[in-house]
Formats: sequence, C-alpha cells, structure tokens
Amino acid sequence: MTDTKTALVISAHAADFVWRCGGAIALHQKLGYEVTVACLSYGERGESARLWKDGKTLEEVKAIRRTEAENAAKALNVHDIQFFDLGDYPLVVDHDSKMKLVDLIRAVQPKFMLSHSTYDPYNTDHMYTSQLALEVRMIAQAWGHNPGEKVLGAPQLYLFEPHQTEQMGWKPDTFLDITEVWDQKRAAIECMEGQHHLWDYYTNVAENRGNHFRRNSGGQAGGRPAKYAEGFQSIFPRTVDEL
Amino acid sequence: MTDTKTALVISAHAADFVWRCGGAIALHQKLGYEVTVACLSYGERGESARLWKDGKTLEEVKAIRRTEAENAAKALNVHDIQFFDLGDYPLVVDHDSKMKLVDLIRAVQPKFMLSHSTYDPYNTDHMYTSQLALEVRMIAQAWGHNPGEKVLGAPQLYLFEPHQTEQMGWKPDTFLDITEVWDQKRAAIECMEGQHHLWDYYTNVAENRGNHFRRNSGGQAGGRPAKYAEGFQSIFPRTVDEL
Amino acid sequence: MTDTKTALVISAHAADFVWRCGGAIALHQKLGYEVTVACLSYGERGESARLWKDGKTLEEVKAIRRTEAENAAKALNVHDIQFFDLGDYPLVVDHDSKMKLVDLIRAVQPKFMLSHSTYDPYNTDHMYTSQLALEVRMIAQAWGHNPGEKVLGAPQLYLFEPHQTEQMGWKPDTFLDITEVWDQKRAAIECMEGQHHLWDYYTNVAENRGNHFRRNSGGQAGGRPAKYAEGFQSIFPRTVDEL
Amino acid sequence: MTDTKTALVISAHAADFVWRCGGAIALHQKLGYEVTVACLSYGERGESARLWKDGKTLEEVKAIRRTEAENAAKALNVHDIQFFDLGDYPLVVDHDSKMKLVDLIRAVQPKFMLSHSTYDPYNTDHMYTSQLALEVRMIAQAWGHNPGEKVLGAPQLYLFEPHQTEQMGWKPDTFLDITEVWDQKRAAIECMEGQHHLWDYYTNVAENRGNHFRRNSGGQAGGRPAKYAEGFQSIFPRTVDEL
Amino acid sequence: MTDTKTALVISAHAADFVWRCGGAIALHQKLGYEVTVACLSYGERGESARLWKDGKTLEEVKAIRRTEAENAAKALNVHDIQFFDLGDYPLVVDHDSKMKLVDLIRAVQPKFMLSHSTYDPYNTDHMYTSQLALEVRMIAQAWGHNPGEKVLGAPQLYLFEPHQTEQMGWKPDTFLDITEVWDQKRAAIECMEGQHHLWDYYTNVAENRGNHFRRNSGGQAGGRPAKYAEGFQSIFPRTVDEL
Amino acid sequence: MTDTKTALVISAHAADFVWRCGGAIALHQKLGYEVTVACLSYGERGESARLWKDGKTLEEVKAIRRTEAENAAKALNVHDIQFFDLGDYPLVVDHDSKMKLVDLIRAVQPKFMLSHSTYDPYNTDHMYTSQLALEVRMIAQAWGHNPGEKVLGAPQLYLFEPHQTEQMGWKPDTFLDITEVWDQKRAAIECMEGQHHLWDYYTNVAENRGNHFRRNSGGQAGGRPAKYAEGFQSIFPRTVDEL
Repeated sequence: MTDTKTALVISAHAADFVWRCGGAIALHQKLGYEVTVACLSYGERGESARLWKDGKTLEEVKAIRRTEAENAAKALNVHDIQFFDLGDYPLVVDHDSKMKLVDLIRAVQPKFMLSHSTYDPYNTDHMYTSQLALEVRMIAQAWGHNPGEKVLGAPQLYLFEPHQTEQMGWKPDTFLDITEVWDQKRAAIECMEGQHHLWDYYTNVAENRGNHFRRNSGGQAGGRPAKYAEGFQSIFPRTVDEL
Repeated sequence: MTDTKTALVISAHAADFVWRCGGAIALHQKLGYEVTVACLSYGERGESARLWKDGKTLEEVKAIRRTEAENAAKALNVHDIQFFDLGDYPLVVDHDSKMKLVDLIRAVQPKFMLSHSTYDPYNTDHMYTSQLALEVRMIAQAWGHNPGEKVLGAPQLYLFEPHQTEQMGWKPDTFLDITEVWDQKRAAIECMEGQHHLWDYYTNVAENRGNHFRRNSGGQAGGRPAKYAEGFQSIFPRTVDEL
Repeated sequence: MTDTKTALVISAHAADFVWRCGGAIALHQKLGYEVTVACLSYGERGESARLWKDGKTLEEVKAIRRTEAENAAKALNVHDIQFFDLGDYPLVVDHDSKMKLVDLIRAVQPKFMLSHSTYDPYNTDHMYTSQLALEVRMIAQAWGHNPGEKVLGAPQLYLFEPHQTEQMGWKPDTFLDITEVWDQKRAAIECMEGQHHLWDYYTNVAENRGNHFRRNSGGQAGGRPAKYAEGFQSIFPRTVDEL
Repeated sequence: MTDTKTALVISAHAADFVWRCGGAIALHQKLGYEVTVACLSYGERGESARLWKDGKTLEEVKAIRRTEAENAAKALNVHDIQFFDLGDYPLVVDHDSKMKLVDLIRAVQPKFMLSHSTYDPYNTDHMYTSQLALEVRMIAQAWGHNPGEKVLGAPQLYLFEPHQTEQMGWKPDTFLDITEVWDQKRAAIECMEGQHHLWDYYTNVAENRGNHFRRNSGGQAGGRPAKYAEGFQSIFPRTVDEL
Repeated sequence: MTDTKTALVISAHAADFVWRCGGAIALHQKLGYEVTVACLSYGERGESARLWKDGKTLEEVKAIRRTEAENAAKALNVHDIQFFDLGDYPLVVDHDSKMKLVDLIRAVQPKFMLSHSTYDPYNTDHMYTSQLALEVRMIAQAWGHNPGEKVLGAPQLYLFEPHQTEQMGWKPDTFLDITEVWDQKRAAIECMEGQHHLWDYYTNVAENRGNHFRRNSGGQAGGRPAKYAEGFQSIFPRTVDEL
Repeated sequence: MTDTKTALVISAHAADFVWRCGGAIALHQKLGYEVTVACLSYGERGESARLWKDGKTLEEVKAIRRTEAENAAKALNVHDIQFFDLGDYPLVVDHDSKMKLVDLIRAVQPKFMLSHSTYDPYNTDHMYTSQLALEVRMIAQAWGHNPGEKVLGAPQLYLFEPHQTEQMGWKPDTFLDITEVWDQKRAAIECMEGQHHLWDYYTNVAENRGNHFRRNSGGQAGGRPAKYAEGFQSIFPRTVDEL
C-alpha cells in the first residue's frame, strides 16, 4: 500500500470503459492515479455484431474483443486491465466471481469507482453491473470480510454516461474537462473496430459535454475554453471544506 | 471589483439563513469570502408567534426580528445583511424589488448562492423564493440587462436544508464540515429568542449531518472526526479537473 | 367556536366537489362534521359546453351552474357552500379574494381540507387551486395575520381524485368507504345535468375504488364488503398513537 | 377553415424554434402542414450576448434578432411567424397578450403544438412558456371563451429538446427522422449569426438523435438509415387504432 | 418467416393477458397480426382462491386454470398460447426456461411485446416478469446468441394496465380503441370463472379508458365515439416520420 | 389463533430493529400487541467493526451480537425474537429460508409489518430485505400456499427510518409518538455496545421526529407535547371510515 491514488472502473462489456470514461481514465493516469479496469465480459455475444456477421466463432470473437480492449487500455495508459470472462447477454456473476471482485477492490483501494447507470431497459447487463458495484463496495467495507485485510473507505461511485441518457434516468452532476487527453480517447475509440458507427457518436458527445462544461463554469463570461468533456452522476454525497 | 471571493444568501424570512446555512456563512467568512445575506422579509407575520402572543404590534415585531437577525449576522461575521422588507405569509416580490435583487447579485458577483428548497408545502414563501433565486440569477447573467454592468458568471445555487427534508423532496449532495465554526452558529441560533424550540432541533441536525459527513468521507475507516456539518443540494452540475 | 368538527373543500369549478369528494362530504356530515365548500368559479366558460351549445349567455350559464351546485350540495347535506365567482379558464385570484379565502378558513377551522392535485396539464386552473390551497392554509396559520383571530392548526390537505389520475402523478394513500352514502353521491352527480357523460364514469370510479378498499383492507380474506369508495392523496404526514 | 393540417410552435425567444424543432417544421411543411411560429420575445436581453458586446442598442438588437429569425423561418419554409415582443429575462405575459395567443391558437387550430420543457433552472423564461402553453391550450378549448368561435380539439403538446436535457428532466418519447430536410435546418441554424458556438452543437445533437432513431427502429437489424433526427417529449397520451 | 405481423404477450399468471390486454390481442388478430401468449405460470397458488376454498388439489387447480386460459384465448382468437408452468408465488425462472423464452421471441419476431408494469408491491411476480421481458428481449437481439438464427429487431415493450395503477407508478401514454372487439374481451373475461369479482371491475376500466381515449383524441369537440379502450405505457421511444 | 393483535418486524441485521422501530415495538407491546422480530442475520461481518478490531472470531462476534439483540429485545418487551442466521454482506436468502419466513408470517398473522426502505446504495442487504418482505407477504397471502393454513390478510408494510433518509428516497407519511416508551428505547439502544457512536445519533433523530410530530399535529397551536417520535413510510394505501 503506497500513497499512490487509485481508481477502479467496473465495465460490463469490453468496450464500455472506452466510450463512457476513457477521458477520465487517461486524465487521472496523467494526474498520477493508477486506474484499474475490470471487464466482466468481452461483450462477445451482444456487442460484437459485425464479427458474428463475418462468421467468427465464439472463441475468435472473445479473442478479438480482448485484443481491442487491451489496445484501447494501452492508448489510455490504463494501469491494469482484468478480464473476468463471465459471459454476456446475460451477464451472470456467481458467488465466487463476486468475491474475486471484492478482492480486487480491496487490493486497489480506489479513491473513486466508475460504473454503469442504475437503469437501462435496453441492456439489463448494465443495470445488473451497477447494482453489483454497490454490493461489492459494501462487502469490501465490512470489517468482518476477510478480517485482517485493509477495509475499504467510502469511495464515490460515479455512474458514467449511458447510451440515450434520458431513457436511463441518468443526470450528470459532474463534468470533467478532458480536452488535454482527447487525442488519447479518440485513439482508444478507434481501437474498437467492430463499432465504427459509434466513433463519431461519442466524439459528438464529448464536444457537447464540453459545451456543458463551459456553460456551467461560467465559460461564456470569460472562463476556460474546454473543448471536450465527460459527464458523471454521483451516487453518494460529497464531503467538503468549502462550497 | 476585487479578487475577494463572495457568496450570496437569499433568505425568505429573517431567521432562515441562521438555521439553514449559518455554518456555511461563518466558515466561508473565515476562508476569506465576503458573504452577503438578503432577507426578503422579517418573517414578521408567520414566524414570530411568541411576539404576537405577547401583544406586540407589527412594527414592533419587525424591529425585534430585524435586531435578532442583525445580531445573528454579527455572530456569524456576515459581511453585509440587507433587508428588503417585502412582507411575508405571503411574500410578494414586485418587478422593482426583483430588479433591486438583480442589482445586488450584480454588485456581489457571488461565487455561489444559497437559497430554499424547490418544494415546501408547509411554506409557499420558501418555494417562491427558490424560484425567484433562479429567475434573478438568469436576469443577472443577461448581457442586455443594464448593458455595461459586469454580467454574472455561472454560480452554483445550493439549496440549504429545509425543515422536514423528506417532505420537500430535498436530497443533499454536499456536506460541509462546520465543526470549527460551530460555536458561532450556536451563538447565532441563540439570537433567535422567539424560536427557542428550534435551538436544540438544529443542534441535533448539525450533529447528525456530522455523522453523514464522516460516513461519506470514509471517516469510520480512519478519517477526520468532523462533529458538525451542514447539507446542501446543488441545482447545477459541477465542472471539475479531477474526479 | 364550538366543539363541532369541521372540514373545508376548495373547488376550482362548481362541479369538482361532487365528482371528486361528494362521498367524503356526505359521510362526514353523517359523522357530525360541518363541511363547507368554497367554489372559486362556476366553471362557466370551461366546463359548461352543453349550455354554450344551447346558446346560453354568460350570466345564464353561471346561474344554471350555481343552481346545479346548490342542488348537489343539498343532496350531500353540505353545511355551507360559498361561491367566489372569480372566473375560470383561466381562474385568477387577486390579493383580496385570497384574503377572503383565508378569512373563511379561519372561520371554519377545518379539521381537514380537500382540494385538487398538484399537477394537471389538462387544466391549469386545477393546479393553480392546489397551490392556492397551500398558500392560504399557510397564511391562516400565521399568528401575525389579523392578530387576535384564532390561528389555524395543522389540518391535513387531502388531494381528491383528478380525471386521468396517472397523468397527474396522483397516487392515493387513503381510501374512504362511502357505501352508506353512495345514494346521496349519485343523487348529487345527477344534479350535474350538463355533464351527463360523467355520471357513469364516476360511478365506475367509485365501484373500482371500492375494490381497492377491499384489496387493501384484507377484504378478500374475509373483511367488510365495501362497495363504493373514494381515494385521496395526503400532502402532510399523519401523527398517530398506534400504527 | 380548410382541411389543411396545421401546427403551432410557441417559442420563448427568437431562436428557440430553430435549434429545437427546425427539422420538424421543415418536414411538416413538406408533408403539407402549415406551421405557425409564435416568438414571444426576440431574446434580445438574454440571448444576444455578442450584439451587446458590439455595443448595439436595444432596438438594434431586437431588429437584428428579428431579421435572423425571419431568415431562419424562410429557410424552414415556415407558413407564418408572429412576434409578440413581450420582453425577455424575464419574459412577462399579461392578460391581453395571453388572450392574443389564445386567438392565435383558435385561428390556427393546430393538429399539434410544440414548446419548451416543463423545467429549466437555467432559464425561467422557458419553463414559464411551457406552463403558458398549457394554459392557453386550455382556454382555447373552452366553449365559453368567445362563444361562437371554433373551439380547439385536443392537440398533442410536444416538448422540444432543451439545452442540457438531463438537467431539465426531459425524456424524449418520440424521434422524428429529419434527414431529408437537414440541409434546410442547417441553413436556418446558420442564420443565427450571433450564436456561432451552437451551430456544431446542434448538428451533433441531430446526428446523435439519428443514432437513437436507428437504435429504436431496429435499424441495426436492417432498418432505415436515418442520419439526422429530433427528439420530443409528449405531454398527453396518444390515442391509437393499432399499437 | 413470412410478412405476417406478429406480437408477443408475456403474462406472469394465466389470467393476466385477459384483463390487461385482451382487447389489444383481439383487435390485432382482426388487423391481421398473429398474437402469441406466453403464460409463465397458471397462477395456481396465488390467483385461484375460490378453487382452493373448494378443496381442489394443485393438479386440479392447474388444469382448471389452464382450461380457463385456453377458453379465453379462443374467445380472443389468440394465434398461439404457450404454458411454461414455472410455478407462482413466487415465480422462479431458471436459465433453461429463460432460454426457452428467448427461443420463442426469436421464433415469433414480434413487432411489439406486452408485459407487466415495472413496479408492483402487491405482486412481486409481476415486477419480476417485467424485468425478465427486458432481459429476454436483449438476449434475443444479440448476434452472438445462437448465431445463424434471425436476431430480434427493436420491438416496443408496452406495459399493460396493472391493478391499482397509481400504486405501481404506471402512467399510460397510449390508449387503444377496443370498441369493436369489446364483446370478445368480455367473453374472455367471463371464462375466468374463479374471479367473478373482477368482471365488472375491468369492464369499468375499459369504459373509463374509453373516456380517456375521447378526451385525448379531441372527441368532445366532435371526434370518434370510442366506448371501450385499453391503456399502455411504452418503455422505449417511438421513431416516426410525422408527429 | 386468538384475538390478540400482532406485528412482525423483518430486520436485515441484528440491531436494525432497535434504532429504526424500537419505539414502535415497545409502544405496541404496551398497547397489547404481540410483536415478533425476525433477524435475518447478526450483522456479524458488516456491522460489528469494533469487535473485529478487538480480534474476535466469527463465532464470537455472532454470539455477542445475538446477546446484544436479545437484551435489546428484552428492554423493548419484544414478544418473540427469531434469528435466521443467514449471513450478511451479502445477505443471501435461499428458497428454504424464504419459506421459513413465510411460515413465520402465517403463524404470526401480523396486523402490520415493519421493514427496510426500498432503496439503499450504502447497504444492498437493506434493499434486498425490503424486496423480500414484499415477496414473502405475497406468498403468505396465496390460498394455494400450504392449503389449509390460515392465509394472510393485507397488513400494511411500514418502511422504518434508514440512515441518511434523503439518499434512500424515503419519505415518512406517519409519525408515531413514542414519548411514553422512550426510556425503553434508549435502554435498548444502550444494549448495542459496539455501536456507541449511534446512541446519540438516534436520540437526536427521535427528538427531531418529535418536532415533526408536533408540527403536523398542530402542536404549536396548542396540541399534545410529544417529545420523541418515529417516522414510517407506508407502502400500501390506508382504508378508512373517516378522514
């Protein structure tokens, strides 16, 4: 345990961490954090349409998706990426996998966590993962879970941006300026070769969230010209010394 | 216009700023802010029961309530307190008073604002004031309002704690540690001689919000022993450089 | 001021009190309450389509609607019905009318109040009246409003059933068995000659709310066979000595 | 009164109809509708920052904004655009202006209406206009309002897309494919010379709403390749003959 | 795979499809759809009180309920009804049954689906089924699930009317005129011999939803005289070419 | 089965029933009810930090927590307390345990039930228990579950007060005056030796809920001087004979 600040991303499928919080990852790596990404599945069945259309087998799809995710992680300078390979559509997390995830949280001791929105009628894997993130955070906080290990403090759980935000009842309360790492995020996005149709989509999102950043920071009245941003919804309240 | 940081409180009745954000005021004064309080009314009709029972006249009630508020402001080291004397139960703000309030915002140029919750079925003056705070903030941001004056940036509007939070649908997202100024807040509270029944009530609130501060800062796992806190709900998202 | 229990209904238009809480009125009269109904308008412009199609003048429409409401009030054994004649579509309540309504509340000292749902996109008069009910209740509670008069306690404000409940976000938390006064309510309904199309509608409502009464009272397991009921949403929490 | 289908847009400020429903306007004109736009103000004080920075006077700002809006209306092939010139920041609608707006609705007899989201803490003019749209729709439906005129039916009120949708609690339930009129919308957008920073913003929005259109129409499984879309939230339920 | 349009109903218990969407089923059969009903259980334990009071055994109850459901299906001219026999109170769906349901969706390729409301504190089987409907829809859309089969598009999931709508937070956004098939729905209802107390209840519902149909279609101003209707809440937004 | 009134508390962890509804328990025992408490776990892993820090083993922690809970139950004069010992963080309830809980409900035949809030991001055991309470209540109501046993009626499920109410979306609609049993509740609280930091916290809560009791009962206008209270949120509507 050193003084290095850390963060943990829990991603249902291989690519989620790229579109939804790639900027936050790259930026915090730059700020000196060590960011770990846990991919619960490769999104092999549900988010790899092009590969299946090309006639790939399940093992091939998983291998390709893994490579894409590893490449994206490199582009974002991710500290560590772990693949749980639990299957998708539906994702199912049994007791042992849950405990393995708790072990990871305890090892990482994240200052903050990132995961999916609490509701997503298009993708029940996403809401299941959001619920799971709360559960494993709770277990990691228990003094009686593997007594002797360092228990978890009270890290924020930020919900990253889902697709079609309004349908998920997701409301961002925090905008992060990712302008200086945008090139890294775009590079990571371009590792996702099977989802070409989303490259420009999430570039648009980043540009428009930049507008929101400026609007809420008083940018129009002369503030910083943030060009790209990401939005997050906090589950827990903040504790501060100054408003 | 100097570099001094400033804040503005919009309080429907004379005492609201004491119970609901007295700690935030004292703390920010200590941090070097200049905090201005706008009292739209004295709470003369609706929140001065004891004085009416004692047979005071309207003018006497208003004078006493004003003195109490001034004393509390002194205890909190308020930079400036302004009384709009617009009447209460119901509070009615005409066009000219609204513009006077806009003038004040423009003069203060607050880094953040504090006002009431958006809903309060017990007290329609409170929700009217909350709506008003949004309206005058918007007007103060308009380049075409009194052109030439410095326009307002995008200060956060924090909703301070209402009485019976759950009935108001108020959900705090920010807890402020006010331990070091608690004595000042308690002293200000004790200036409110006609509302003795609320002294211990808001002391309990501050203690229990201290518990929430600790719980959310990881205090149980070895963090700072905040004893007193205040909670706030943000209307607008934050713009940050680090999560 | 006697020991008689009292209740007050604030109805935007002449007929609202009949469809929405006619059973509650008749039942409480039977229980010994004195129930007063305040009709803010006759619903002359917006809820008298048939009369306008028949070529009636404004004064004729108002007179007919007033008579209908008086007849319905008689059928329900209403203690007192007062017509404020403030106009409808839109209903506008000026300061003096508001104070007149406060005077009425103070005179009645209701144990509970009944009015409209807080939201109604079909009928802005309804949501305006709901807001108004909260405001005048608050003013009547103020010790400094007409000092010397008896101030109001803390009567419940029940929101009666709107048309198309789900669109209004109205959720009943209280079902009242009106079986024994159903004949009176039906008779009152039949006084509304211009709204024939609603007679069976609100009969259906009463029958189905009876089903809800039984379902929630454990009726299926052998409880009381309530046949007709009305639903209400409470604004304020209850204070009880037994759960 | 002919058989031509009509629609009515109620826009708080001059440019709102362009960003938020310009595609819907152009498309319905193409479909044979006559679309009328009511601009309640020019957005002269609050949404013309560049012009004020350039030292223009109030009258000059209003004239320029009017010309921009007229040009945009031409680009969209708007049937009729009417300027109410009621002032902005804050927008205030007195009784006579309200009645003038009711007259317009009655004259147009729209099959559907378009206006602002019900909540907008950044811009109280917007939520005021949304509330107003409900009120004037209700008045226009009243048989007793100007008896003899044709009363309004039950047109849908669609809420068009606000800026920062999630902050407004706006959730689209209808996506309209505007691909074939996109060039017209972009041309109209470019008439708004003082708000250059929003041109690409709303182009991004249109592209991403196109993605949402495809996602919800089953486009990924082989549906129509809509490239641009607009989203709308319905206030009222639909009445249909087939699901 | 032909061009026939299809629909799929997922019903937790045997009778749910009758009360809640019997009209929609009969109407769409008439419109040329093939409507399939999946009954996950017979409602044998929880919704067959009369049979248990009569001393029937579990197998007898199931047989009787199945016959009732088959008769109702015939009355509604259902294309296909399938019984999953998974047990009720509580309903439990294991992995294999879930996959069997996915197979059914893939085989049917429904243009739209119908199931329960997302919340129901009276009946956890209902909310479990609603969640399940989203999950199996998602799996059926995955290109990697049983590669080679035709994947599902993006059918709407309509939530049909629960009992005590307001308690479930259910808000209909679509009303369907079922007047021309009402006799069929009533006949189907009367197949449910053990639930006599609900016959008139759901007749009342249909009549009053007819009122809502007329009110929202402008019926009062001269529209179609729909007498019976059903209401539905859409989970997903619509994609349209005309508002 | 006698005529004695009964109540049932379902508590996720050993101490929950003390902080959250100890007053309700003691008061109803005094009123002649027999109150049964079901503790699903001892809170051994997640809510016994001090014991783990002291180096206790799992069995020791469980024994100590059980003794504390039994002592608290005695102080509150609980009729019966049952320990299910299902483990915590996470609590997992298998089919057999669920049925054992149903058996208990059937045996108790509670007039009302008490359990956790529906949402709790800090503690997924709590929301799981709330969901479970609804499920077992439903099963106990089924005539086909263990036919021959007395089925359950329709007892209210009151959600008792969670920690940080606003984060849980918990809104009390019922305040119970517990002044006369406060000494018992405080004594029970003091049995929880490992959670000393919560003793004053929940004393503050009780005092401030007393304020809410008085505020909503009209106490300021001369009502009963309740000093301590507890708040509850009802899941189901009430059925009454008088408003």
